[in-house]
Order: sequence, then C-alpha cells, then structure tokens
Amino acid sequence: MKNTYGVSVSVTLFGESHGPYIGAVLDGLAPGIKIKDDYIRKMLSARAAKSSISTARREADEYSIVSGVKDGFTTGTPLCILIPNSDTRSGDYGETQYLARPGHADYTAECKYHGFQDKNGGGHFSGRITAALTAAGAICMSALEDREIKIATHISRCAGVCDREFDDLTADFEILGNADFPVLDAAAGERMKEEINAAKNSLDSVGGILTTAVTGFPRGAGEPWFDTLEGELSHMLFSVPAVKGVEFGKGFELADMTGSAANDEPVSVNGEITHRSNNNGGIVGGISNGMPLLFSCAVKPTPSIAKKQNTVNLRTGENTEIEIKGRHDPAIVHRAAAAVSAAAAIVLCDMLARRYGTDYLSGNKD
Amino acid sequence: MKNTYGVSVSVTLFGESHGPYIGAVLDGLAPGIKIKDDYIRKMLSARAAKSSISTARREADEYSIVSGVKDGFTTGTPLCILIPNSDTRSGDYGETQYLARPGHADYTAECKYHGFQDKNGGGHFSGRITAALTAAGAICMSALEDREIKIATHISRCAGVCDREFDDLTADFEILGNADFPVLDAAAGERMKEEINAAKNSLDSVGGILTTAVTGFPRGAGEPWFDTLEGELSHMLFSVPAVKGVEFGKGFELADMTGSAANDEPVSVNGEITHRSNNNGGIVGGISNGMPLLFSCAVKPTPSIAKKQNTVNLRTGENTEIEIKGRHDPAIVHRAAAAVSAAAAIVLCDMLARRYGTDYLSGNKD
Amino acid sequence: MKNTYGVSVSVTLFGESHGPYIGAVLDGLAPGIKIKDDYIRKMLSARAAKSSISTARREADEYSIVSGVKDGFTTGTPLCILIPNSDTRSGDYGETQYLARPGHADYTAECKYHGFQDKNGGGHFSGRITAALTAAGAICMSALEDREIKIATHISRCAGVCDREFDDLTADFEILGNADFPVLDAAAGERMKEEINAAKNSLDSVGGILTTAVTGFPRGAGEPWFDTLEGELSHMLFSVPAVKGVEFGKGFELADMTGSAANDEPVSVNGEITHRSNNNGGIVGGISNGMPLLFSCAVKPTPSIAKKQNTVNLRTGENTEIEIKGRHDPAIVHRAAAAVSAAAAIVLCDMLARRYGTDYLSGNKD
Amino acid sequence: MKNTYGVSVSVTLFGESHGPYIGAVLDGLAPGIKIKDDYIRKMLSARAAKSSISTARREADEYSIVSGVKDGFTTGTPLCILIPNSDTRSGDYGETQYLARPGHADYTAECKYHGFQDKNGGGHFSGRITAALTAAGAICMSALEDREIKIATHISRCAGVCDREFDDLTADFEILGNADFPVLDAAAGERMKEEINAAKNSLDSVGGILTTAVTGFPRGAGEPWFDTLEGELSHMLFSVPAVKGVEFGKGFELADMTGSAANDEPVSVNGEITHRSNNNGGIVGGISNGMPLLFSCAVKPTPSIAKKQNTVNLRTGENTEIEIKGRHDPAIVHRAAAAVSAAAAIVLCDMLARRYGTDYLSGNKD
Repeated sequence: MKNTYGVSVSVTLFGESHGPYIGAVLDGLAPGIKIKDDYIRKMLSARAAKSSISTARREADEYSIVSGVKDGFTTGTPLCILIPNSDTRSGDYGETQYLARPGHADYTAECKYHGFQDKNGGGHFSGRITAALTAAGAICMSALEDREIKIATHISRCAGVCDREFDDLTADFEILGNADFPVLDAAAGERMKEEINAAKNSLDSVGGILTTAVTGFPRGAGEPWFDTLEGELSHMLFSVPAVKGVEFGKGFELADMTGSAANDEPVSVNGEITHRSNNNGGIVGGISNGMPLLFSCAVKPTPSIAKKQNTVNLRTGENTEIEIKGRHDPAIVHRAAAAVSAAAAIVLCDMLARRYGTDYLSGNKD
Repeated sequence: MKNTYGVSVSVTLFGESHGPYIGAVLDGLAPGIKIKDDYIRKMLSARAAKSSISTARREADEYSIVSGVKDGFTTGTPLCILIPNSDTRSGDYGETQYLARPGHADYTAECKYHGFQDKNGGGHFSGRITAALTAAGAICMSALEDREIKIATHISRCAGVCDREFDDLTADFEILGNADFPVLDAAAGERMKEEINAAKNSLDSVGGILTTAVTGFPRGAGEPWFDTLEGELSHMLFSVPAVKGVEFGKGFELADMTGSAANDEPVSVNGEITHRSNNNGGIVGGISNGMPLLFSCAVKPTPSIAKKQNTVNLRTGENTEIEIKGRHDPAIVHRAAAAVSAAAAIVLCDMLARRYGTDYLSGNKD
Repeated sequence: MKNTYGVSVSVTLFGESHGPYIGAVLDGLAPGIKIKDDYIRKMLSARAAKSSISTARREADEYSIVSGVKDGFTTGTPLCILIPNSDTRSGDYGETQYLARPGHADYTAECKYHGFQDKNGGGHFSGRITAALTAAGAICMSALEDREIKIATHISRCAGVCDREFDDLTADFEILGNADFPVLDAAAGERMKEEINAAKNSLDSVGGILTTAVTGFPRGAGEPWFDTLEGELSHMLFSVPAVKGVEFGKGFELADMTGSAANDEPVSVNGEITHRSNNNGGIVGGISNGMPLLFSCAVKPTPSIAKKQNTVNLRTGENTEIEIKGRHDPAIVHRAAAAVSAAAAIVLCDMLARRYGTDYLSGNKD
Repeated sequence: MKNTYGVSVSVTLFGESHGPYIGAVLDGLAPGIKIKDDYIRKMLSARAAKSSISTARREADEYSIVSGVKDGFTTGTPLCILIPNSDTRSGDYGETQYLARPGHADYTAECKYHGFQDKNGGGHFSGRITAALTAAGAICMSALEDREIKIATHISRCAGVCDREFDDLTADFEILGNADFPVLDAAAGERMKEEINAAKNSLDSVGGILTTAVTGFPRGAGEPWFDTLEGELSHMLFSVPAVKGVEFGKGFELADMTGSAANDEPVSVNGEITHRSNNNGGIVGGISNGMPLLFSCAVKPTPSIAKKQNTVNLRTGENTEIEIKGRHDPAIVHRAAAAVSAAAAIVLCDMLARRYGTDYLSGNKD
C-alpha cells in the first residue's frame, strides 16, 4: 500500500517523469459530486512551471479522467486521472546518469531499487508526479467547496522574505484565489521573486514556508491516537517533495510560549462554542474544534542547482563532481502551494467520509 | 483502525486515565526477540513523573505482558501489555466535570463522543496512555538495539533555554543513557529546570523541543510516496500528546538556506558511500540514506495550569471561569522524550519488517 | 496488522491457551451503545464446552471490559476485553511437545515461529482464542440488534445428519435463541449428538456445516471490487478455526443451476423492491440487496482425536506415532456456531460504519 | 481502500465496461522482475471470449504498461496497466436502462450509487474489469514462476459434468498450459461445451466449479488470525464476479469426514517433512505447510440470459419483464479460470513479500 493513501477516500499515484503517462486513481468519493474541469485546470496551472522564476520545461498538463465519471458527475467508483508527459527530452545516457545529484533521491533510489529504477528526470521521485496528486486533490477541494469547506495556501516565507499572516480569511482566500503568485502581500511577493531570481543568477536555489488555512471544516473529526488530524495530514504532506517540516497552529513557536498564552480558551458566542484564539490550529486531542485548520510546511530549496557540486559515481563508487545541466526551478515553494492544498483536501475528504459515511460529501440520501 | 498503527509491526492502544488498566497490543514482532524487563522499566521510569518539576501523581507503572512472550522471548504472536492504574483519585463529579479545560481535548471529545466519553483525568486522551505506548516502544527499541540500531532523544530547547546540539552521537547517547533529565549539557538542563519551576510558581507551564537521533538504521527503507519515512514517523509522533510540529534534519531552517548549502553531498569513504552533511536528517526522497536519522518535535506547554482561565460549561453552554485543581506538570517535555523515542522505535521496526520481512529483527532463518 | 481486522470497526486478538489472559480490543464502535452483560454471557456460554459432547475442560469465561465503557455505554474509544485462563493444566514438557499433532498447526507454527511459539494447548492457535472473538462479536451483535439487525447460526449438517433449512426467519431465530444445541429441528439435533458420541467412542471426531442468516441488514453496503460483502465476511470467517469453506446463498449448488433458476428476480411489493428468491444470499455485485444475508461455513472434524496417528518429532525429525491425551471435543461445530455469528457481526458493524459513518450504529446526532 | 487490495503487494482496479479504458495499478513488486509480454497476452487470451461458447463481443485486450517498467524489468514503483475498450457498442438509452437485470448488480448499484453509476454494460461491475485484474495477476504469476511457484486452474465441474481431479501436478500443469479449454480430461471438456451450447440454445446459462493448485509455495506464510492464507485468498477470490463459494482442500467434504480420515499426517521423507495427504489444501492454522495449495471456487451461472424474466423498472418502481438483448456468455466458468489463477497470484506475492520482504521475489540483495 506504498503508493496509496487514505481509508475511505484514497489516492494511488503512478508514473515516472519521462514515461508516457503519470496519473492517479482517486477512490471512495461519493457518487454525484460535480466534476469541474475549470477548477482542476486552475489548480494544475497554479502548480505548473511559469514565468522567469521556474524551469523552462513546459507541460500542457492536459489530463483526462478515464473512469468514475459519467455525465459530469462522479459515479462512486474510482476515478483514474491520466496526464501524458509531452515535453520529455531525451535522457542523458552517458556516465552522467550514474552521478548522484546531491539533495535528490538518486542515491536512496539506488539503495532501494538496486539500479532498476527509472533514472530519467528523477523517475517516480520527480516533482512532476505532483501534477497527478494535484489533479486528484483538486477534485476533492472542489467537492469540499460544495460543502463550504475551503482551503488556501500562501507562501508565508521565502528566501528570508515574509508574507503577512492570514487575517480575515474570507478576504484572504479571495486574494489567493486571484493571485498568480500565492502571497497575501503583493509587495512581499515581488521581493520573494527578486530573491528567487537572484538565486537563479547565482546558479543556486531557495526554499520557503507554506501556510495553509481551511475554513468550514466540521468539529469532531480526527482520532485521539494515531489517526489524529495532525498525523493524517502530515503523513500526506511529507509526500509533497521537498517538505521537511510540518507544524500545526503556532507549531514550533509553542515551544517558547507559556500554557496561559498558548491555551485557546473556549467561549460561547450566541449559543455557539468557539475559541478566543487559535494557537492549536483548529485541532486539539487530534480532533477538529471548529476553528479554521492552520498548518505550515517547510519546503527545502530546490536540490537541482547549476553550481558545481561534489558527488559520487554510483556505478564506479568514485568521488567526482557534477554540474547539473538543463531546466531547473530556482524555487519550487510557489508551485508546491497548489500541491499542498490539493494533498490536504484528499485527507480531509477521507476524514469526513470515515466519520460521516461515504455519502457525506455529496449529501445523497438513502 | 483508529487506535492501531503500523503495517508489519503494529501497536494498538486502549485505556482511560482512571480505568482499571491501560495497555497496548504490540503485534508483528519476529519470534525470538529477547524481552528485557530492565530496559522496559528504565523507559517507563524516564516517562514517569518525578521530582519537583512534575505532577505529584505517582504511578508504579508495573506492567505485565500477558501474551506473546514465552521463556523470555517473543513468540511471534501479539504481546498484550497491561498497566494497572493504581493512583487514581476520585473524579470530580460536580459541575466542574462539564467545564472544558482550555488546551485540552474536553471540547473536541464532547463534539466527537456526544458526552459518552470518560471524562475522568482526560480519559482516553490522557497523557497517561503514553505509558502503554512507551512500554510497547521500549520492546521495539530493545529489539533494534540488538541489531545495533540506537535511538536517543534530548530536550534541545525548553522555555527559551537551548541544550547543545548532537555532536558525537556515540558519546551523546552514552550521556543520555545515564541522564536523569534528558539533556546533553547538564548546565543547560539545570537552567531549564529553573524555568520550569518558575513557571510552576507562576501557576503556569512551559513547552519545548525534543530532538531525536537514530544511528545504525539501514539505507533503503521508506517509500517515495505516502509511506515516506518522514510521513510514517510524523503520523506516529503527532499522537504523542502536545506534539504540534515535526521536522526532519534542519527542518524549518531549510526554508532560509540555499540549495548549495542545504544539499548533502555524497562522498565515498573507503569504498562506502556516506554524505558530507546531514541537513536532510538521513532521509531523501522518503528513503533512508544511511546517515543518522534526525528529527525534532515541538511540544506545546502543558495545558493544565493552575491559573484561572476563561471557558465554557459544556452542559449549559454558559461562559464561565475554571481553576484547575490537583496535580499538574509545569512541563512535560522531559517526560515526552521517552515516549517520542519509543513511539519512533515502533515505526522503525515496522519499516524494517516491511522491507526485509518479519524475521529481519530477530535474524531467524528459515 | 496480522491479528487486527476491520477498517472503521476493528478487532485485535491476543493471547495463548495457557497464558494468564486471552483477550480482544474492539475499536471503532460508536459512543453510546449499551453494553449488555447478559447478552455477552449468553454468547460465551453458547461457545463454551458443555455436556457429554464436549471437552471436559471447563472455563468460567469470566470476562472483564477494562476500557471503553463508562456507566454501561460505550465511550467511543477502544474496548479491551480480558478473559482469564483459569483451568489450564500443566503442559507436557516431555518429548510429546515436539510431536506434531496431525490436523493441528503444530508443524506450520514451527515453520513460522522457529520453535519460539508457545506450544501449550495450541498457544495462540487454540480454539480458546475464539472466546475473546466471541465476546467482542457479542457486543457487535447486540449493537446490531438495537438497530433491528439480527444474526443466527444453525448446524445445517453434522456427521451426515441434516437439520431442516431456514424457513420463517423470525420463528427460526426464536428457536435458535432458546436452543441449547443450535439446530432448528430438535430431532435432527439429537441424531447429531448421537453421531458425535459415537465418534467419541471410536476415539474419533466429526465435522459439519454451519448456516447463518442475517435479517434487517440495509441494502447498499459492500463494494464491487475487493471489499465485497462476501470477501470481507469470508476473510473473517476463515479465522474461525476449522472453517475450510465459505459459501453465500446457494453457494456451491449454484454451479449446477441454470441462470434462469439461479437469478433472483426483483419484484416491487407495495412500493418496496424485494426479490422473488434469495439464491445469492442477499449479496449481488458484492453489495447487499436487502434480502436476508445467508452463508454457510464448512467446519472440519476436530483434529484432536484419541486414536493413535502417525506423525513426526519436530525436534529430531524422526517419524513416530502420537496418542493425544487429555480433554478433547469430538465435534466443535456446535461451539463454532456462536463464534461464527459473533465474528460476522464484527464485519457487518464495520461495513455499516464504513458506509454510514461511525455514529450510525448508535444513532447519535451531531 | 475499496478498489485496492493487498498490503506489501497491492492492486487497484478502475474502469467501466464502456469507458475509454479499464486498468489496474500493481504496486509493491520488487525491482528487477522480468516482464514477459507473451505470458501476459496468453493469460488475457485465456480470459477473453472465444469460440461458439462465449459472447460475440471481441476485445483485442491490447494492454499497455505506462509506468513502473524500464528496459523490460520492474523498477520497483507502481505499474499502471491500461486496456482500451475498443468494442463498445452504443448503450441503450431508452427505458431498458432502468430495468434491473436479475442476477446482476443493477439494483444493488442503484442502492449504493443513487443512480449516478455508469449503467452501460454493467459499468464498474462488468466482468470486463477482470481483464485488468488478469493482466496484473499475470505479472505476479510470471514473477512467482521465476521462483518455481506455479499456479493452474481447471474446471472441475460444469453443468453437471466433472473433470478428473488433479493427480500428477507437474503433468497436469503441462496439460493446462497447453489447453484451449481448461480441463484435464479433454473428453469431459467436450461434454461441458455441449452442455454450454445446449444452455445457449435454451436461452439460458450454466455455472461450474474451478479448482486451483499451487506448487512450490514456501511453508510458513500466512497468519493464525485474520490474515490466514484462506482468508486472504478468499477475500480476493470473491471479487471475481460470479464466485459465490470458496473452499480449501476437501472443503465442504470435510464436514462429512472423521478426524482420523481428515487429518493430514506429517511424515519425514529423506529428512524433509511432508504430509501423507492434503485434505487441508496445504494450509493449516492459516499457514502454508509446504504441500500444494488447493482451493475451489463455485461460479454461478451467467446472469445475462436471453430468456424473458420478471423484474422491476428502477425509475418507476413498476413490475415488468425484461429480455436481455445482445452478446452474452452462456457460461463464464472457463473464462473465469484465468482470472482466478491471476487473482490468487497477486495475493500469494503479497503474502511472500509480507513475510520475506519486498525483494524476495526478485532475489535482489542489499
């Protein structure tokens, strides 16, 4: 069950960077959910490389859904999403293919797959596979929105530049829905892009932090042990390539807070229980409390850089140097934003279906 | 499968803070693993409350293993570990039981269990349940040590005081093995305890960060998608109560690093491939690379504080105040260290058994 | 996840025949389900050895539920059920312990556990473990009955003697509810007992077939591929020791029928769709159709017989003979009836919770 | 995890009878397993409709594997197998689409999917999906054969005509490997075909029993509780459409045997332990004992028959009659033989990978 995740709603990923297709099987969605192609395309477009700050590789990301949809609605059976790899250039079949790119999975893939792995473009480890994850997640996001559950992710930090924090989520989601570059403060976004370009010019790369908010998520979902909302979300989020840290609410800042400052006090407002603060990111005891879900992902700098690096030839075992040619992203944090929202949406659909049954998301009645 | 985690090696937790027993079922361990009672007791003791900086509640934590062990060795069938709750004081059956303690799961439990949950002492949400998790994990840690895979956790930060970083892991593991308070720098530990006591005197509490290292873990374990080592470990670690963030290697610091600084360059030393740095915490592409595994957990300050707080009466829905009486920990980060090591050990045993088969840990041969 | 089964509702088994306790952890039941001790005791009593046709070993089967229940209702957290082993006689520590009993798991256990398995009384393979399964299943059966879903099992065949078939299920369930020996036709039951006693007197044993009916099960549960109702039920039922075949509806008889005879024609009666026959046992395409669920289990004759048999000494590898001493059941089919009903109840609770959510069985409302 | 089965080796199915593709994702196979296209094609051909006794629908079953294979060997990452649906005729969009075909899943699909299911050609319930299952299973069968583990299935009974039983498995596997119609006794096969044709001429259909043998399967695989070999195999086998019963070894016949006749006595032959008989079908206590695995599946008669039948209009709820037009199989038992072998192969690969690790099947060494 390696490439499959989820219980009631699950996703299975397959494909390699330079194979004919990458894709995903999305299973467990209720029948009767409307498939919105515009929505999916917008998410894929947000994930796609673009403008001066991304790789020059262009993918049309023309997906097709070959099962599980009829007349524009989910049937309740698994959706298989196929995305052809159109812009694959011929692989490097010389000695370079044996040079482990630092920061990449080339060496660990060799340990695990004994040389049988597809090395072209990173193979199954390629960030390209997130296009399939994003497409599957976009369908889940759209289904959640139909139930007034909304997700948005912004770059809260990139190359030392901070975006402003989430404030009025309704307004902020509107901003992010229209943004070409996922930040709340456009000026901060411009400075981030400058830093990204500067890194590119130095033949280097930069990382960042993504912060996600979810509104409208029902209270009472999640489990106290093991299948906590935090555990389920982080399990998924660490699959988004380059994510090396996940925190909820104030996360690592909580380590320096006192209990009296950190505790979110419940308060009754017009007969409904809410909380005076949201330091726990909407999750206490592993279970949602009705506040917006808040979490952040640390994204490491893109490992592919043009600078010369030391490495090992995996065939000969000799120490050598590597200069990675080709098309690289000096940052992927802006592209990862879409993947993070989409990936989280799959988990949230699963947690709702587990708790409320498989028809919850569509509102079908027996 | 809510309270069960793991695939080839799995743990199931049960029990409430004030019930007759808490316990764990540990399944999937190879037959022929030696059960070391001293080892288990030491881990339980490390988790137990003690000295001036912990709750006054004392638990003997006398466990018994009622299945799966014969003549001191695992049989290969599930181990059930029972720990009686000896020091339970009578619950508060007045109106106080309906007051949601801020930062606790009282309100989310009410949302999920509709009032049927056992409220005494936090019931199934109690940190007490980690005694069972720690006992199960101690058996896994001991089995890993028999294969030269070692785990240790220190408090890298508490109430603003930093411990020194891991350096020579062999020496540092020795220090932590003998430490009463899990720090590498005893002086830093004393300052942390002072801060903890200061918090206690202010009727408040503090949090911290735990950093864990694992040596000897084989390369090639973990999966590229979903069942990444990071995803599996974090899924488990977020079950340790109060953990609100998990990061691997440099984690959130990576967001501010450049690719050239962050990338761990492979290097061949005496014919064996290793790496010049370990910013990725021993995991690249979800898979172990033979470097020590390194990860950190953010632990929020103990939610139970003696200070008066605002809250809601869950029965009447009225806003009110709460003063939590009784025995509290002004910090739990030092106690959580044992639980984190133990919990991680279960996941690591599982990942090894998945990859190398169920007999790997015992070295049995067919 | 070896000794754990189920997704939304799951059971974990542990224990050995001669250890201090056997037990089960039952997880995922909705909060607010009434625990009926009489019901559980009645099921355990039906499973227990009794009268002249069973082993002389007597177990009080005094269970205790040490978690997950408060004030007589489930809390929504895992129930751990403990059953002490009271009547364990000292094991045979001579050479006999190495003689593989034919038809038992002694040899396969040796292959799998390399000699570390607990051999006393069959250890973890003992039919005794079904007491814990039956207790867990009894709680599920009781919860199902609260929703008007009822399960009953009769011996449809034993030692060549047939019981009559199910007819009026309401009346038949009443008969079985009051029966000491689970047959619909008391005279057939007497003849079965005679055959069982005759087998005993010949130092031999007999098998049989159990047929189960479930009324009131909602239509629309189950999945077309893999998690079919048949697949889920059979997966569980083959865990009941000695079950070697499972069929649904007419089962193997369908092989000799024509399509026109086998097809169950739908028919609308007073605006509700039902079927003119039930050859498919209430399941078509893996999914329930609202007709009673019907399935049968083939139970092999008890492998423990007093007759001398050929076997191998697993320590020396030498061919030898074995005469199994002690207390045996000349048949277990009548005892297995309770285990089969109970085991099926766990699966049915799981399938309902998967489809309708975790609160379905209790009717709690958010 | 509805359409996904398996733990270490798993398969996910997708597709509808008249959609653009059906397919399967096969995950968890070791890297370095040779993909043999001839082998896959032969299995697909055995499953395909042919000759006078099958439906007139012809499918080329041209599959493509779009991921997980490089240079003819598995990479260790998931294989996605796509099979286009070429010979789909336009669906019936009149009132007929609402008439529940007796014996089919039309009514249960309606209950589960509320009318959103793809009704054309049975949609996701179509036996056509077994082409994808068979292709995935063929890869597993081929991998098993590379380790000298062989699987073959014959029609042991069809329309009242019995094939002879398995005898010399080496010779019998040879016969079945060359047979166009999977029987051991060609004359019996001819009589079966006559009966099938007679059924066709009567506008009716017939069923049968498939019996499968597996040689070379290692001893010691399987679990005592829940993940018994019987439980795992049956869970999968009940997914093969029309299978309504599964038995192991003598199965239901064991119900009428005595213990002394049923028990398989171990015997040491040239220092290796084997058994004097194989009534248990190579599985005792849920675990393989080194004898050939033997199991049988009851296959119900094809539900699609040309005879007029009573049914209900699912849209209007009215009783009516149905005459199913089009291309039908008067029997599917001969086609199901390939699917049963293939489906079992997936489970057996999974059980081996669980026990011996993911590299077991390829023999890779770390």
